[in-house]
Amino acid sequence: MDVLVVNGPNLNTLGTREPEVYGSVTLPEIEADLIAQGSLAGLSVDTFQSNHEGALIDRLHAARTDGTRFIIINAGAYTHTSVALRDALAAVRIPFIEVHISNIHAREEFRHHSYLSDLAAGVLFGFGTDGYRLAMDHVIAQLTPPT
Amino acid sequence: MDVLVVNGPNLNTLGTREPEVYGSVTLPEIEADLIAQGSLAGLSVDTFQSNHEGALIDRLHAARTDGTRFIIINAGAYTHTSVALRDALAAVRIPFIEVHISNIHAREEFRHHSYLSDLAAGVLFGFGTDGYRLAMDHVIAQLTPPT
Amino acid sequence: MDVLVVNGPNLNTLGTREPEVYGSVTLPEIEADLIAQGSLAGLSVDTFQSNHEGALIDRLHAARTDGTRFIIINAGAYTHTSVALRDALAAVRIPFIEVHISNIHAREEFRHHSYLSDLAAGVLFGFGTDGYRLAMDHVIAQLTPPT
Amino acid sequence: MDVLVVNGPNLNTLGTREPEVYGSVTLPEIEADLIAQGSLAGLSVDTFQSNHEGALIDRLHAARTDGTRFIIINAGAYTHTSVALRDALAAVRIPFIEVHISNIHAREEFRHHSYLSDLAAGVLFGFGTDGYRLAMDHVIAQLTPPT
Amino acid sequence: MDVLVVNGPNLNTLGTREPEVYGSVTLPEIEADLIAQGSLAGLSVDTFQSNHEGALIDRLHAARTDGTRFIIINAGAYTHTSVALRDALAAVRIPFIEVHISNIHAREEFRHHSYLSDLAAGVLFGFGTDGYRLAMDHVIAQLTPPT
Amino acid sequence: MDVLVVNGPNLNTLGTREPEVYGSVTLPEIEADLIAQGSLAGLSVDTFQSNHEGALIDRLHAARTDGTRFIIINAGAYTHTSVALRDALAAVRIPFIEVHISNIHAREEFRHHSYLSDLAAGVLFGFGTDGYRLAMDHVIAQLTPPT
Amino acid sequence: MDVLVVNGPNLNTLGTREPEVYGSVTLPEIEADLIAQGSLAGLSVDTFQSNHEGALIDRLHAARTDGTRFIIINAGAYTHTSVALRDALAAVRIPFIEVHISNIHAREEFRHHSYLSDLAAGVLFGFGTDGYRLAMDHVIAQLTPPT
Amino acid sequence: MDVLVVNGPNLNTLGTREPEVYGSVTLPEIEADLIAQGSLAGLSVDTFQSNHEGALIDRLHAARTDGTRFIIINAGAYTHTSVALRDALAAVRIPFIEVHISNIHAREEFRHHSYLSDLAAGVLFGFGTDGYRLAMDHVIAQLTPPT
Amino acid sequence: MDVLVVNGPNLNTLGTREPEVYGSVTLPEIEADLIAQGSLAGLSVDTFQSNHEGALIDRLHAARTDGTRFIIINAGAYTHTSVALRDALAAVRIPFIEVHISNIHAREEFRHHSYLSDLAAGVLFGFGTDGYRLAMDHVIAQLTPPT
Amino acid sequence: MDVLVVNGPNLNTLGTREPEVYGSVTLPEIEADLIAQGSLAGLSVDTFQSNHEGALIDRLHAARTDGTRFIIINAGAYTHTSVALRDALAAVRIPFIEVHISNIHAREEFRHHSYLSDLAAGVLFGFGTDGYRLAMDHVIAQLTPPT
Amino acid sequence: MDVLVVNGPNLNTLGTREPEVYGSVTLPEIEADLIAQGSLAGLSVDTFQSNHEGALIDRLHAARTDGTRFIIINAGAYTHTSVALRDALAAVRIPFIEVHISNIHAREEFRHHSYLSDLAAGVLFGFGTDGYRLAMDHVIAQLTPPT
Amino acid sequence: MDVLVVNGPNLNTLGTREPEVYGSVTLPEIEADLIAQGSLAGLSVDTFQSNHEGALIDRLHAARTDGTRFIIINAGAYTHTSVALRDALAAVRIPFIEVHISNIHAREEFRHHSYLSDLAAGVLFGFGTDGYRLAMDHVIAQLTPPT
Repeated sequence: MDVLVVNGPNLNTLGTREPEVYGSVTLPEIEADLIAQGSLAGLSVDTFQSNHEGALIDRLHAARTDGTRFIIINAGAYTHTSVALRDALAAVRIPFIEVHISNIHAREEFRHHSYLSDLAAGVLFGFGTDGYRLAMDHVIAQLTPPT
Repeated sequence: MDVLVVNGPNLNTLGTREPEVYGSVTLPEIEADLIAQGSLAGLSVDTFQSNHEGALIDRLHAARTDGTRFIIINAGAYTHTSVALRDALAAVRIPFIEVHISNIHAREEFRHHSYLSDLAAGVLFGFGTDGYRLAMDHVIAQLTPPT
Repeated sequence: MDVLVVNGPNLNTLGTREPEVYGSVTLPEIEADLIAQGSLAGLSVDTFQSNHEGALIDRLHAARTDGTRFIIINAGAYTHTSVALRDALAAVRIPFIEVHISNIHAREEFRHHSYLSDLAAGVLFGFGTDGYRLAMDHVIAQLTPPT
Repeated sequence: MDVLVVNGPNLNTLGTREPEVYGSVTLPEIEADLIAQGSLAGLSVDTFQSNHEGALIDRLHAARTDGTRFIIINAGAYTHTSVALRDALAAVRIPFIEVHISNIHAREEFRHHSYLSDLAAGVLFGFGTDGYRLAMDHVIAQLTPPT
Repeated sequence: MDVLVVNGPNLNTLGTREPEVYGSVTLPEIEADLIAQGSLAGLSVDTFQSNHEGALIDRLHAARTDGTRFIIINAGAYTHTSVALRDALAAVRIPFIEVHISNIHAREEFRHHSYLSDLAAGVLFGFGTDGYRLAMDHVIAQLTPPT
Repeated sequence: MDVLVVNGPNLNTLGTREPEVYGSVTLPEIEADLIAQGSLAGLSVDTFQSNHEGALIDRLHAARTDGTRFIIINAGAYTHTSVALRDALAAVRIPFIEVHISNIHAREEFRHHSYLSDLAAGVLFGFGTDGYRLAMDHVIAQLTPPT
Repeated sequence: MDVLVVNGPNLNTLGTREPEVYGSVTLPEIEADLIAQGSLAGLSVDTFQSNHEGALIDRLHAARTDGTRFIIINAGAYTHTSVALRDALAAVRIPFIEVHISNIHAREEFRHHSYLSDLAAGVLFGFGTDGYRLAMDHVIAQLTPPT
Repeated sequence: MDVLVVNGPNLNTLGTREPEVYGSVTLPEIEADLIAQGSLAGLSVDTFQSNHEGALIDRLHAARTDGTRFIIINAGAYTHTSVALRDALAAVRIPFIEVHISNIHAREEFRHHSYLSDLAAGVLFGFGTDGYRLAMDHVIAQLTPPT
Repeated sequence: MDVLVVNGPNLNTLGTREPEVYGSVTLPEIEADLIAQGSLAGLSVDTFQSNHEGALIDRLHAARTDGTRFIIINAGAYTHTSVALRDALAAVRIPFIEVHISNIHAREEFRHHSYLSDLAAGVLFGFGTDGYRLAMDHVIAQLTPPT
Repeated sequence: MDVLVVNGPNLNTLGTREPEVYGSVTLPEIEADLIAQGSLAGLSVDTFQSNHEGALIDRLHAARTDGTRFIIINAGAYTHTSVALRDALAAVRIPFIEVHISNIHAREEFRHHSYLSDLAAGVLFGFGTDGYRLAMDHVIAQLTPPT
Repeated sequence: MDVLVVNGPNLNTLGTREPEVYGSVTLPEIEADLIAQGSLAGLSVDTFQSNHEGALIDRLHAARTDGTRFIIINAGAYTHTSVALRDALAAVRIPFIEVHISNIHAREEFRHHSYLSDLAAGVLFGFGTDGYRLAMDHVIAQLTPPT
Repeated sequence: MDVLVVNGPNLNTLGTREPEVYGSVTLPEIEADLIAQGSLAGLSVDTFQSNHEGALIDRLHAARTDGTRFIIINAGAYTHTSVALRDALAAVRIPFIEVHISNIHAREEFRHHSYLSDLAAGVLFGFGTDGYRLAMDHVIAQLTPPT
């Protein structure tokens, strides 16, 4: 696997939950698009979603040994509360991009702080589901430099 | 299911843990009482307890499609730390009542803030285990209005 | 008197003031319902409302000697600013329930703190005017235990 | 009554109290001037002063039904401490102007915050007693628009 | 009147309220002792107690014109919340001593701040009801210097 | 020049920018009205607007030597961030009135603090564009006292 | 002009200033790339850089009437201090993307807050100069939707 | 079981993750050493590691009934965020020692606070993996006092 | 020794240092007065002053075994910074009165907090050097109760 | 140019503005003295003053290529508010000394923080205009070491 | 000397002061035990206690030249207030272990911060006087590694 | 003595302690240079260093009567913690200059605040040991004005 796309809690409800905030595209659709986008660039993409903090950590640990070269992660609400997830990302030592669908700075105060951002290779939010595509675009630019 | 009663971490120890704070009634007894109370009003009640934040989120998601019309939740310690649980409750868009057995404002400072309260249809705490009964009483009043 | 129901500033305007927040029931109607609810359980209920902090304190002091066994209090805005009211409740040493009609945690920041809560036998808010009924229900359960 | 002019605690001492801060004009003189100013514009003006928070609230409630169309209020020290007064002004739903004689931002830190300002139709301070005249001037402009 | 002794909210309950904190002496007993203590030194002493913030302010205003030369005040809970009382004391321009029976710095955090202290001619607390006697002793030393 | 009217950043967009907040009157119209208002009272009025902090400071410095006796300033966003503007106003030692069209205390938290207010001869906000007229009215009362 | 690319203070030094933080590409090179990227998608792109807060505001105002449909802005240090720039962006009512080259959350605390983010249509940082390309990519996706 | 050794999130990566911070010893090696150390003193030792907050709570609950007399816990990142873990430790009422391998006060600010420390029978950090041995040494001293 | 009077740093300069704040009486004069005052009541009084925190602690420790029954302490600036002095007072377990000559709440913010107050049997400040006399008066009342 | 002396907003008013704070020497006089002081040591000195943040940044950028080896800067009020100026100084990578004429720690709280100090080769304030001379003295010592 | 054991203020009272917090063992007994423990491992141990911050600093300075290889320090109350002690420990550049007898996180808030911890080679607290033994055990493990 | 040079805790280690921060010059060398510098200007200079807060205060007190006209003080770590030293400097009423060798604003947060600065006749830091020379230079300019 070249790229791992991780989604955290409640992102499995995408498309049905608060569509005025998150849009109507579902997570499987997003994941399929990202796999296709990577594939076009010759990159294999794996995806994972869980509402369990521990399961997310377990999956990140696995990335240490499955060849993952870049991670795209939308940690959902754990972004704001999970030091454990931060530590897992630091432990695997794989560059990662932090994505949020909504503009977290236009929402509640407690969403303005992220435990992940200062470790990230890049952060983007507010672009809706297009943010995933932009993140993958950057990953492709990093992993498949022009020859 | 009309009503879902959710209990969070450590509430499975009710009746044995710090009885001077939480009383000696056990959680299964409370759940049985609530099912009976609902039944008398013609409402079906389901109950769920877990120490796993992710499992609680999964159960709440399931409520979106199993007919649940009201949720009574004592999220225990996750009340004070879990944005993910808040998001799950917001995602399911079912009215809920927040219950705490002890008076959380008479305890440590970090128990004075709840990530759930501002979204709740009602909040009550300090009534001991009688709080569940009062919550169910309100739910019944909402779901079975006088004809 | 067994139960004293105290309402603080601006609650005399109930039913006319911001009905989208507080509902259209008037305070006299609520008080009448509570007296009836208590009467059914064999409890005498007295009610009191004032916009004057001092008058509320005077009334609470009187409860020390008129046989009051439980107090239900919605201190309105004084909840957030009155140490004097807190001291009066501590001085009379009668258990009390703190009630708020609206969800004070869904409103301005300064309504999130209460000078009364940590002393209360129970706190509930957000249930609309049904909150008074739930409070009285708990009082009845306390004062008239099953034989 | 078209316009109600309310003055809060200690403003009855105007003219004698700290004249270097508040000037030497007395409150009755100010009230007389405002009544005259309103009269010239065809507006009836009522005035009220009390050191009692509850009495100020009672008077504001009365404005709901006595035809008051605009309120000019100098709540004195209650500006900085009274949520109850704020609620009373919100309850009566009559536009009001907040006046302070001295420059409250050039005084103690605790005078920099007002519980009334964000609800006001206008706020002015530091103009000495001329501030009342400016407030009434604005009220007249609002209530007696040019034909 | 040479000396005015003012007591604020809930101090009328002295001797009955939380005797382990405040002792068992009643306020009338204290007031009688202070009148006697002043009388021995040739000073007339007046006393006043109210639970009403406005009434306390009104009484302080009256001191401007009744010959009061020194004030001893235990403002009770208003110490911590009343800017209006502070302003009243500033307005009358009579030196005053701030007294508290209990050690307010050994109690809740919100009792550590006083709106009166920085204006006081002296502050004392924690001496129990003996604090009133010490305050009067200082007043006597100020008003009746040795010849 | 007797009176200088200074407007800061973005106020050149008045009438087109967020009219629901700022109204539809344009700045040139306001300036013309103020010149006329001053003229009626025998006062010459100069106006200045810039989006450049430095240009505003330069203009204020010039007021030291062009006879300006009073300044009316709406510093816009620089109100909340510019110590340099504060220093310029302090340096010229000409009394000034601070004006804001909208109610800055009903907007974002960062608009609640002003670096100018404690130095001002008067502050007013929330009156819409009528605020400029009130400010000029006060200036006229100060500069052309009744004979 | 369809797209305006604005760069704030010190960004003219790109390529020479702290290359270990900002890379060695110069601003003219970046601007040329963005013009080419837009051109390929049929969009005209204008670029602007200034160290003057006022000049940036003036340029943004001009965008109201020159047909600009989207703004990409890297406000540099003004991001963290300029309410005036925020107001200018709000005034022009054109959607904008906030870009930062470095990871501002991995730098000093005062760079963690942005006055622009909550108004932005999207925010990205930490991607180096590739961030501009991603922003333009999103703009193109918005302005030239697939037919 | 006499002693339970619990390790939280990411500690399964010990020896591979940031060895300059945590050393190169693996968790199984540490656990084997602790079992041997306990065995020498005649104490049975059980070990448990999980990245799942809920699993850690479940394991602690089990200790209530399996004879555990002392707990050694390195809760990893949950130390700083988990009230639920704190509650679980309080619920089981077994004395515990809090261990951290690195010096948490020499790292990020958010690692300086622990939800466990004030309940612990002892806290130690910064000793590297030798900290576990010291903790077990103290446990042995407590459970097997000299005869 | 019955009573120990301790004075901290810089109090040896009394009478010469800032007389407008501290008066012109010297410390030896104050100490002589206190010894005389105690003597009249049959109490022996010892006095001590040092600018050395350690010397003050040493002297307090000595009080444990020299028969001291009450301590009067003006810890000067160490009041606000010395946890060690607090611990020494707690260690000796002798009741003490905290005295300050000036009104510490009318001075710099950092003088408003005392590390001693919550442990004191009484606190008084602002009475000038008369404060020592009042403190001794209270001590006498405590140690030589009326027969 | 060897040394660049930069003065920020309002420093052009030196000698006329608040002479009791800043003295009566004018900026041209100071600049002439510094040029002479440098000249004596064989150093060429250039001076610059502006009230425009952008102009100051532009001038600092120019220093990168005009041979400047040391900068002496009194950024006036921008010291406390300008991250852009900080970035400009960091970008040019020339050592600089921060000078303030008045004692900024004896003035308003907001003048106690400087965005420049931690980057400076030295900071001095409170020496009046003699501070510039001391700064130049140090620069000379650095640039013209004894042979 | 191989190991220096330093104890700070009030620790000379160990065994007599608050035994319920600190136990009944005296400091000389602890010191004797540590000397014996070191001796068994072939290490010479020196001990020092003072209530004087300066004396503690002087003693630490001496350690630079007397061969000390490790320091065990319980700085008592100076832990929370002394930057000077921190600097002394940094100056001597000898690794040190910070010990506290009681659980400082279960006591007053101001004991939760240590000026020494982030520099320490290890920190432990709450183990009672056994903490010294554990610290020495670690020192021995460091200084006398297995051959 | 005309000038007193005082150095606080740990400054006796200058030249050996952290030379990369403080340089390799020793304190006796610095003191000798300052005495020589003063001597050239006809001023006698005394020097003093102690690690004891009390000794520093004692020495400052002595300056009141030994003819000292100016003090240069580097209070080291006591700068940040000692109100007693501040009071001593205020008590002697001799102008003083505060010196720090390193740039205290480029170090830990707790070194950014000084209890001395607002009282100082001048403050300088970051110039290395050259700072003492600059301070003495200013003192000479003050005490030996040009004739």
